Amino acid sequence: MAISNFEFHNPVQILFGKGEIAKLGTLVPKGLKVMITYGGGSIMKNGVYDQVKKALEGYDIVEFGGIEPNPKVETLRKAVALGKKENVQFLIPVGGGSVIDGTKLIAAALLIDNDPWDIVINKVAVEKAVPIGAILTLPATGTEMNANSVVSKLETKEKYGWGHKLVMPKFSILDPQTCYTLPDIQIANGVVDTFVHVMEQYCTFPVNAQINDRIAESILQTLVEVGPKVLADKTNYEYMTNFMWSSTVALCGFIGCGVPNDWATHQIGHELTALHGVDHGQTLAIVLPGVMSVMREGKKDKILQLGARVFGITAGTEQEKIDETINKMVGFFESLGIKTHLSEYGIGKATIDEIVSRFEKRGYSIGERADINPANIRLILENRL
Amino acid sequence: MAISNFEFHNPVQILFGKGEIAKLGTLVPKGLKVMITYGGGSIMKNGVYDQVKKALEGYDIVEFGGIEPNPKVETLRKAVALGKKENVQFLIPVGGGSVIDGTKLIAAALLIDNDPWDIVINKVAVEKAVPIGAILTLPATGTEMNANSVVSKLETKEKYGWGHKLVMPKFSILDPQTCYTLPDIQIANGVVDTFVHVMEQYCTFPVNAQINDRIAESILQTLVEVGPKVLADKTNYEYMTNFMWSSTVALCGFIGCGVPNDWATHQIGHELTALHGVDHGQTLAIVLPGVMSVMREGKKDKILQLGARVFGITAGTEQEKIDETINKMVGFFESLGIKTHLSEYGIGKATIDEIVSRFEKRGYSIGERADINPANIRLILENRL
Repeated sequence: MAISNFEFHNPVQILFGKGEIAKLGTLVPKGLKVMITYGGGSIMKNGVYDQVKKALEGYDIVEFGGIEPNPKVETLRKAVALGKKENVQFLIPVGGGSVIDGTKLIAAALLIDNDPWDIVINKVAVEKAVPIGAILTLPATGTEMNANSVVSKLETKEKYGWGHKLVMPKFSILDPQTCYTLPDIQIANGVVDTFVHVMEQYCTFPVNAQINDRIAESILQTLVEVGPKVLADKTNYEYMTNFMWSSTVALCGFIGCGVPNDWATHQIGHELTALHGVDHGQTLAIVLPGVMSVMREGKKDKILQLGARVFGITAGTEQEKIDETINKMVGFFESLGIKTHLSEYGIGKATIDEIVSRFEKRGYSIGERADINPANIRLILENRL
Repeated sequence: MAISNFEFHNPVQILFGKGEIAKLGTLVPKGLKVMITYGGGSIMKNGVYDQVKKALEGYDIVEFGGIEPNPKVETLRKAVALGKKENVQFLIPVGGGSVIDGTKLIAAALLIDNDPWDIVINKVAVEKAVPIGAILTLPATGTEMNANSVVSKLETKEKYGWGHKLVMPKFSILDPQTCYTLPDIQIANGVVDTFVHVMEQYCTFPVNAQINDRIAESILQTLVEVGPKVLADKTNYEYMTNFMWSSTVALCGFIGCGVPNDWATHQIGHELTALHGVDHGQTLAIVLPGVMSVMREGKKDKILQLGARVFGITAGTEQEKIDETINKMVGFFESLGIKTHLSEYGIGKATIDEIVSRFEKRGYSIGERADINPANIRLILENRL
């Protein structure tokens, strides 16, 4: 089995390092009406807002704050209304994955008459978008260098991914110093999220894609090493740099090129967030071990490779090595302070029934072999009670 | 010492895999006057020319063949004259690094009145360029996904690198099958060239750039594994795929981001090509071991890391491990059929004197610490007699 034909095209310009936000004025075309979007206001406290405003002196700016974690279309509709009223021509999200993902939807929705949710559920095609230049302040999702976005609907407790090349940021600025004031839980979630992004592109079946495999393992090894260090020393520039760059590289499209992908952990995890508001990173730490354990036959070769190359597991039978690899990974998540069982979040059998029922209604199976059907989703979640 | 601020921006669209050349017609805007450029005519024999012509049916095409290895400005001037006469609007180089590098110069020179060489020696600034879409048929230089070009001047036996963002290909098509008919020596040179491209961005001093380091080691490990296999089985799609993608990833800008770079091996090697016509890959196999041996103090940490992570060298004193690492690398080059000593190419002391004298005249030193001065260049070359 060889690597499939692929296309790689990622034109996002990355500016990385100390003080790079000051270059904003050289990146945003002069004379455009700019909308800055942000979340709960942490950027006011840590000085990032001031840096952005200073770099944009002379621009005509409108602001939209309050984009929440797992951005809600109900909130984003207000931003779209404001942007339309103000004839916004350039969008600058300042924040983490939620702010940037939400702003991608704003970028596309500003230029259509439909409700923004129609974009998320593919009811209307994206044909143009307002350009985006992002300031990343929370490493995790990789959205700063890709076309993806995940948006939720409060009304129906739904959460879906969507994406379009036209909403890729024109540029993204990453200054690790902007992350020094992040709460521990957000860093821990970001490390887990990055780890699982790699796994979704890696832990499938082998196609002899040596470069993809080794780059994937490079990121995983780096996270295992640097994750605990970042948490213990949040203002260490080197640690934060390695974590921040890992999260971007993980989901910029490189390691997924031409290899099977399995986004089942994300798809099942989204349901836990939609139903119970569990943090995205936490849902992944819950679900991935279950996916690996239940789908171990199909993923055997890659789990063994992961165990050997990343966790140094070489002794025992195949089944023992698989179990030990999963245990080591769970231990890594837990060492970051992330709980990995449903019961630890007060979630039980009723939720499993609801999630299985949702997937039954959708009528399709997930995973790289499309063999993660509702029955397997039940086994996966029961494995994580 | 931490990673430096960096910018990464590589908008080249890569299409990789079997039969991708057929998509040419969807990638080149309709109605443009196209110039196909190529080398010595191997594309006529292996069917690639026919694939390209078929994919471009309906386009108004002019052709320029005969771009030689180490493309000469004397040849490229003729292509520029033809392109100007024909009002060429899109360039399609079909070949290896030399054809693509030469075409980059054509792209920029078509839109100025100066002699093309003025671009190479920075006498005139590049402000625009005719767009390029490349068909790569020889993995090695990475030029298909970067802004670099190396051009020679026959008249003065000079060879210099230059580059500009505007000459980056809009797209590059890589079908490993187009490489099945390459002569062994070109594959061996390509493997060495790729290996050394990684080393020039890796074998310097550590700045705790864990992602860069590990991706660099990923490519080196892959080359060590796959290099001999490709040579032994040139029509194996999986082997050729891993080699071909390695060479692109090695020099697309990723692993060099924010870390010290040392292009001394290339700079010294270019002189051997300029003076004696030694293949580019061969010059690198000669020079790199000398650079590592002579500059071992400054490069110690990274040579030891290379030895441990890529060649599995862990026993002995530091000096022994450094020597063993260099020996293993030389053994790898030689296992591909590439000779690594000057005398094996009939080159002796007179050439060393000439090269040292050229660097003395230029009046600057090279290497990541700018400590490879003419005296060290002499030691490096004498080390390789």
